[in-house]
Formats: sequence, structure tokens, C-alpha cells
Amino acid sequence: MAKLWSGRLHSGLDAAAEDFNASIRVDARMVREDIEGSVAHAAMLGACGILTPEDAALIRKTLNEIRAEIEAGTLAVDPAAEDVHTFVEQELTARIGEAGKRLHTARSRNDQVATDFRMHLRGEIAGVRELAKKLVAALCDKAEVYADAILPGYTHLQRAQPVSFGHHLMAYAFMLRRDCSRLSDCARRMNESPLGSGALAGTTFPIDRAITAGLLGFDAPCRNSMDGVSDRDFAVELLSALSILMMHLSRFSEEIILW
Amino acid sequence: MAKLWSGRLHSGLDAAAEDFNASIRVDARMVREDIEGSVAHAAMLGACGILTPEDAALIRKTLNEIRAEIEAGTLAVDPAAEDVHTFVEQELTARIGEAGKRLHTARSRNDQVATDFRMHLRGEIAGVRELAKKLVAALCDKAEVYADAILPGYTHLQRAQPVSFGHHLMAYAFMLRRDCSRLSDCARRMNESPLGSGALAGTTFPIDRAITAGLLGFDAPCRNSMDGVSDRDFAVELLSALSILMMHLSRFSEEIILW
Amino acid sequence: MAKLWSGRLHSGLDAAAEDFNASIRVDARMVREDIEGSVAHAAMLGACGILTPEDAALIRKTLNEIRAEIEAGTLAVDPAAEDVHTFVEQELTARIGEAGKRLHTARSRNDQVATDFRMHLRGEIAGVRELAKKLVAALCDKAEVYADAILPGYTHLQRAQPVSFGHHLMAYAFMLRRDCSRLSDCARRMNESPLGSGALAGTTFPIDRAITAGLLGFDAPCRNSMDGVSDRDFAVELLSALSILMMHLSRFSEEIILW
Amino acid sequence: MAKLWSGRLHSGLDAAAEDFNASIRVDARMVREDIEGSVAHAAMLGACGILTPEDAALIRKTLNEIRAEIEAGTLAVDPAAEDVHTFVEQELTARIGEAGKRLHTARSRNDQVATDFRMHLRGEIAGVRELAKKLVAALCDKAEVYADAILPGYTHLQRAQPVSFGHHLMAYAFMLRRDCSRLSDCARRMNESPLGSGALAGTTFPIDRAITAGLLGFDAPCRNSMDGVSDRDFAVELLSALSILMMHLSRFSEEIILW
Repeated sequence: MAKLWSGRLHSGLDAAAEDFNASIRVDARMVREDIEGSVAHAAMLGACGILTPEDAALIRKTLNEIRAEIEAGTLAVDPAAEDVHTFVEQELTARIGEAGKRLHTARSRNDQVATDFRMHLRGEIAGVRELAKKLVAALCDKAEVYADAILPGYTHLQRAQPVSFGHHLMAYAFMLRRDCSRLSDCARRMNESPLGSGALAGTTFPIDRAITAGLLGFDAPCRNSMDGVSDRDFAVELLSALSILMMHLSRFSEEIILW
Repeated sequence: MAKLWSGRLHSGLDAAAEDFNASIRVDARMVREDIEGSVAHAAMLGACGILTPEDAALIRKTLNEIRAEIEAGTLAVDPAAEDVHTFVEQELTARIGEAGKRLHTARSRNDQVATDFRMHLRGEIAGVRELAKKLVAALCDKAEVYADAILPGYTHLQRAQPVSFGHHLMAYAFMLRRDCSRLSDCARRMNESPLGSGALAGTTFPIDRAITAGLLGFDAPCRNSMDGVSDRDFAVELLSALSILMMHLSRFSEEIILW
Repeated sequence: MAKLWSGRLHSGLDAAAEDFNASIRVDARMVREDIEGSVAHAAMLGACGILTPEDAALIRKTLNEIRAEIEAGTLAVDPAAEDVHTFVEQELTARIGEAGKRLHTARSRNDQVATDFRMHLRGEIAGVRELAKKLVAALCDKAEVYADAILPGYTHLQRAQPVSFGHHLMAYAFMLRRDCSRLSDCARRMNESPLGSGALAGTTFPIDRAITAGLLGFDAPCRNSMDGVSDRDFAVELLSALSILMMHLSRFSEEIILW
Repeated sequence: MAKLWSGRLHSGLDAAAEDFNASIRVDARMVREDIEGSVAHAAMLGACGILTPEDAALIRKTLNEIRAEIEAGTLAVDPAAEDVHTFVEQELTARIGEAGKRLHTARSRNDQVATDFRMHLRGEIAGVRELAKKLVAALCDKAEVYADAILPGYTHLQRAQPVSFGHHLMAYAFMLRRDCSRLSDCARRMNESPLGSGALAGTTFPIDRAITAGLLGFDAPCRNSMDGVSDRDFAVELLSALSILMMHLSRFSEEIILW
């Protein structure tokens, strides 16, 4: 099948180059978000009269079936597809024909990827925060039990002051609480929808970006389309917040190993 | 003069090692914060009856004089001092004798450094945010002027969609606005006072940590002394936020160079 | 089965911790080197009279069978083994009983891992050098064909001087030639055998380190046992050499993309 | 004075931008190499008949005077100059007029900078190697003295095997010996002269690159002009070699601190 970007090339790509270029091994994990985004996009296209109500309904129904099959394990993402977006679209078109191709109206790979990526990270952040909060709760419980157990506290590898083991554990609880707060700030800042930004400068179709943003749980559409599709600062910020979290866990683990 | 840590050593340190060990070239920039912190500490010691009212008043008055002389340029931080804290204490003691040495009651280098560092970064953040906000305002002004100037927009080095130059500039305004918000979050999270944490486990003197926290503009004392003196996660978070800001400025600058 | 390090623990390890601790997914790739190293070690133990000739011969024969089965695909490294060394030893002991356990005489995990690692990287370097040399040859061929094709040469994104395309290609040939030379230097420097260093300070058995070094293709045994088992500078040096190679390939690729 | 790159700009540069752009604070350290390179370049231009013998001799004599004054401390590099090359040329021209401007014939800033940089690093490497070799000698001396002093050797923070303190010290001697060998390899690989490569594709003047290479102590001229002026892989390689050296020194230092 012709690749999206095959325009200028006369013959097919070497298999090694094709394999190198494919992102499916990485982005297959975003299949749920990709389908959710497409369902919302189809609903909006229907609501704005860009798709007929029949097409919009058929697309949404079929996408939800695909998603259900993937979640049930009866359909697998095809590792030979170029990326997860292509996989979903091919699967849809194989089931409902021409109507499936109309899904991509008023949308670009650029805003689609940016939307999937933010939704995916938003979900991952929620999961990590949940785990960190459980650890804080466990530390508080243990700290209460060991409030009166006295340990030597060290500075410069020398014993310096006695300290309660409960107090020692609570130091980590407070570190992790700040980590949770960093993760929240990051999730809040990234929670704007790039969908509708097109390749970089929007689209001439009369879309309504507030509809997709609302359906997908974003606080609002991105205010600037070029910023929305191009910036990945939220990912750098998340990497930093996770690194600090891991630094705290590593410090804690090293201490346990030393003991 | 005997160094703080000279306990086990029988002879003096080699000059090269002493120079390598000294932090004065780095921490001299925190002299203002170090004095402010000591003024607040002296006030608290007086309020809690740990110092006599006379000593507390004399220390505060003299520290404020030292600060005024430094700001006026009539007194310079001595580069031969081991660190800025030692410099301030030596200067104080040279002027008022024994009373000066009492300033360090119920305090450790550890909580003193942590306090200076947070106050210093808090001030730096405010300065950078001010500059970033000015740049956002300038971008908004230029964007209004050039709202109707049409540029080619590129994807993959190919012309893709026309875009208004004003819209292009506003992409950077939104990036910088997020940078400002990252800096605010970071400043808010670090704004707790470690003073009173001692070396790691507080002090047996009846201090009131809320007094120093309030005088120094912190939202509250750190809740856990070990966390307060040991963690530097706020500095890592700030480095990350500043790196993202520089990445945005670098992207903007590269574009201007290409034009 | 009891783990090597289980000494102080009273109950088994949680499955998640065990999985986290296992290195088999990483070191399974060194199975060939691990077996080769053990074959040489057994030969040396036999030659020095530490093992009986029968035990030494049986161990070597069985290890070679295991290796042949792995290479033929009829035996797979067990992903449930803790590490590749344990897997090989368990497999050997399952086949020949007590004699298999004697293989580890006068050896430690520490010198065994260090030996496997150096042998593995030595092989990888040879493979990468071969590929780089092929690319140099291809560049030279193309440079000859295009010796007279004139291109604009750029400085600061401005056309500066005309340049032959062949000359342009040869710039990359010379870069890659230096990369090959860096890889050779690195391979030469790491080609000393740590086997016989024991945990850190050798062994009391009358081993002959020159025998194993010779059988395994090392230039000589490491001169210092603590250095031999602990330093990984060769790996850092290799990462640096490979990074520079990738930088050259990346520069070349980016240029092709721009064209 | 007009800047080299001022071509398209109608008014002067803002002082802050000029300061940001200037490299004099960094490259002033290469003033000796810059003058040496220019002396060799002038000698070659004279030998090839591109400059008159009188001009060539006058330039060389004056450059050597400038160098002598700088080394004697009677002339200082002007921090207001844009870069060190401009400083030397201005100083020369101020002393001998038009002839001074002819020095830059058949040369570009690009090959001049690349030459200075390689000569400078070559010298720095020699200095660091000398220090490292002294440390190796000192370690060997101490190792001899303490050959019979027995220490506990640790693995995983547990006492594992007894070890001689002399043996322990010699581990570092061997690490440093490899560091010296890495530095030698790096110095040898970079010791080719880029002078004569011009901006990127040489020059139409009938220069002789072997003359300057020989006068400046290079093994040969770079074989490819684009490679010669553009690649900085030698600097990356050197940074890597120095990082590994520092890692060894850091490991040694940390051990001493623990003791």
C-alpha cells in the first residue's frame, strides 16, 4: 500500500529502511487513545455537518467495535502497519469502505499524534500518582508504628543526632507528596486539546474544537495551533518530574540496602 | 583560624586543597540572603528568650549595618573566607565580640545553607519570570501589528500551509506563558522554611520555626526536618523549567537566524 | 533453588523483586562467550592439576555440546534463570552431576562477568568496524564516479565555494576512517583477561592465568586483579567511540534528507 | 570598526548582543597558537612566492615581537576585540600597515580556528599526561612501601578477601596508565593540519600545505578540506578520555574520604 509520504519516490522502500521508519512498535500502546480521539472527531464532524449523520454514526459504532475487540484480545494491532493511526484507519475502511476514509477530513497526522500523546501521558500520570499516593500512605502507617524507635542520624558518614525511625520515614512521605504535586501540575498544564490544529495552521472546514476537547476530557482547545502541534515541552516536564521521583525512590532503596 | 571540620587533622590544609574546598566563590552571591536569614534567626531567638533582648537587638542592628555596607560597596565579601556564612559570622564577631558567636545558637550550617539556597532561588525565579513576561508582552504587541502578514508555514522542510506572522509569534507567547507557570509552580513548592531543622533532627532549644518562616516570607516551616535539610529536588525542578525555557528561546532564535 | 545471595533472608523473594533483580534478559546475549570462558577455565584447571583430567575433559565436552545445541536452536536460554552464568552451570550440572559443580573452583562471578563482557564487546566492535569499513569503501567508489560533479558548498547557510561531490563524500570517508581507528584502539586496550582475578584479590588455588588468557584470545592477563574485576572504563570508551560514529552518520543522513 | 560579518546590517550591533557574540574571553587562551600558526602561514606564503620575501619576513618578525611582548606581560589581549584572530591581525596591521593585511591571503577564519584549536588541545593533552604520569609514579612508589600492609577488601559492602594496600594502590596506577594511553591515541589522531583548507574547499592560490603542517609539528596536512575545517570529533574524544580520567580520580578520592 502507498505510504503517506511516498510522493516523490518511484520504487518501494528497502525493508530495513521501512522497519527503521515504522513507529508501530512504540505507538501501538496508544491504540485506545487513538480510537477515542477518532470517535470524538467523528462526532464533531457529524455535529458540524461536515459528515452526514449516517457516516458519523457508522464510523463511531465501528470504531467502538474495533476498540472492544482489541480490549477483548480478539483483534491485535498489526505490527506490519506503519503506525497505529494507519492501522486503525485501515481496519475501519476494511469494515465500512469509503465512509472510513472520510474520518480523516479536517484532521492531520500532526494534530492526531499530538492529541494521542497527551491523552496517553495524562493516563500514565494518573497511574503513577496513584502508586505514589499508596506509598505515601504506607510510609505514614509505618511511621506511626515506629514513632518511638530511635536510630542514629548521620551527617558526613558520622553519627550526628538521634532520630525517630518514624520521622525518618516521614521524610520520604513528604518528598513523594511533592512528587505527586509535580505530576499534577504537569498533567494540568498539558491538558489542552491540539485536535483541530491541522498540520500547523488549522483547517478551512467549519470545525468546532470545543466539542472534541470536551468529549476527550481536555480543559480547553489549545489556544494556538502551531504551538499545539509542535511543542512537546509537556513530555520534557514529565520526564523531569519522573526523574526526581525515581531519585527519591533510589535514595530510599539505597538506604534499605545499606541497612 | 581553625576550620569547622578540622577536628581530626593535626596540621593545616595544603593551600591547593583549601582553595578547592572553599565555596566562597559560589556562595558569595547569597550574602544578602544569608544576612536576612540571620537577622530573622536572631529575632526569633530573642522572642523565644534564648538570647537576651539586648543581644538579639545588637546582632540584628549590626547585621543590617553589614548588609548596608555591602550593598553600598564599602564592604566586600572576603574571598579568603571558607564560605559566606563564615564570612558574615566573622565580620559580626569582629564588631560585637562574644554576642556575635551566640547567633549560631540552635542553628546548624545545614539548615542555614538550605534556607539561603531556597531564598536565593526564589529571588532568581522572580527575576526570570519578570523578563519572560516582558517578552510575552512584546510578542503580543508584535503579533497584533503583523496579524495580517502572511508567511509560508513549513512541515518537513516543505511549504505546507500559509500562516499569519502574528499567529506564528503567538505560538512563542503561549510557550513562554507555560514557562512562567512552571516557574511559579516551582517557586511555590520550594517556599517552605528549613530553618530550625538543625543538622537533621531539629534542636533541643525551644525555638519557634513559624516566626523565622514568617519573617523570611516562607509560606510555612518544612514539615519534616530531615527532608528540609537534605532534599534539593527544588533545584533540579528549577533546572528543568529553565532548560525548557531556554529550549523555547533557542527555537525562536534559530528561526530568526534562518530568516 | 537457593539464590547465590540468599544468605541472610529467611523466606523467598517476592516474584516482582526477583524479576527486577534478574539480569538474564540482558546477559543471555553473552551465552556463547560465557561457555567459551568456562571451557578455557576448565582446560586450565585440568592443566594445573586442580581438576582431574577426566573431570576437565567431561566438563569441556559437555559445555561444547550445550553450545552446539544453543547455536542449532535446539536448546534455549531459560528466561527463569537468574543470569546466564547460572543457566549454563545448572544445565551442565543437570547433565554430569557433581563434576559440573567443580567448574566454579578458583573462579568468582566477578571475574567471570568481567571476562564475558570484554569478549562480547570485542566481538561487537569487530562487527561494527566491518560495517564501517564497507561504508568507507562505498563512499570511495561513489566519490570516484562523482569526482567532477560540482555542488555549491555552504558556510553559515550561505553558498560559499563550489565543491566536487566526490570531495564532499570523501569528507565522510575520512571521518569514518577515524571512527574505525578509535574502535581499534578501544578493542586493543580492553583485550586483557580478568579471569583469575577472583572476587577482587585472586585465589589461593595454583592457577595459571596465562593459559586462559591465551585460549580466549586475550593479549595477556590483567596485571592487577582489583582493576581487572572492577573497572568498566572500556565500556565507557566504547560508548564514546560509537557515539562519535553515530554523530557522523547522523550528519550524513541529515544532509541526504535536506537534499 | 566594521565586523567581519556585518555585510547585511545597516546599523551597529547592540552592545549586549556584541558581548554575547564575542568569543575573545574563550579564545584569548589560544593567542600563542594563533601567532605560531600565522608565523608558519607567512613563511609558507613567502616560500611559495605568494608574498614577497620582504613582506613575509616583516610579518614573521613582527608577529614574534608581539608574542614575546605577550609572554613578557607587556602586551595584553584586548578584551574588546571580537576574537583572538582579529586582535592579532589588528595589532600586526597597527605596526606594519598594509603588509599586515596581506597575512590573511589564502587563508580563512575556518581553517585558522581549526588549526589553533588542534594545536591548543595538543598542548593541553601533553600537560595532563605529564601530571597523570607523575601520579602513576607516586602510586608505584607508595605501593612498594605498603606491599605488605594488609587491608580488608570489600564486595557488596561486605568484607570479602584480604588485600595488600600496595596492590590496592596499583589498581589505580593501571587505570591511570590506560588513561595516558587514551590521551596519546587522541593526540595522535588529531595531529593533522587543517591549515590550507580555506572556508571549506581550499584556495586557488598555489599554497603548499606540507610546509605549514611541518612547521607546526603536525604529522601531515588533513587529507580532506571539508573534513578538516568542519569536524570536531577530536574534541569529543578528548572530553570522553578526560571524563574517564576524572572518574578514576573521583573513585580514588571517594575512597580516601571514606577512610
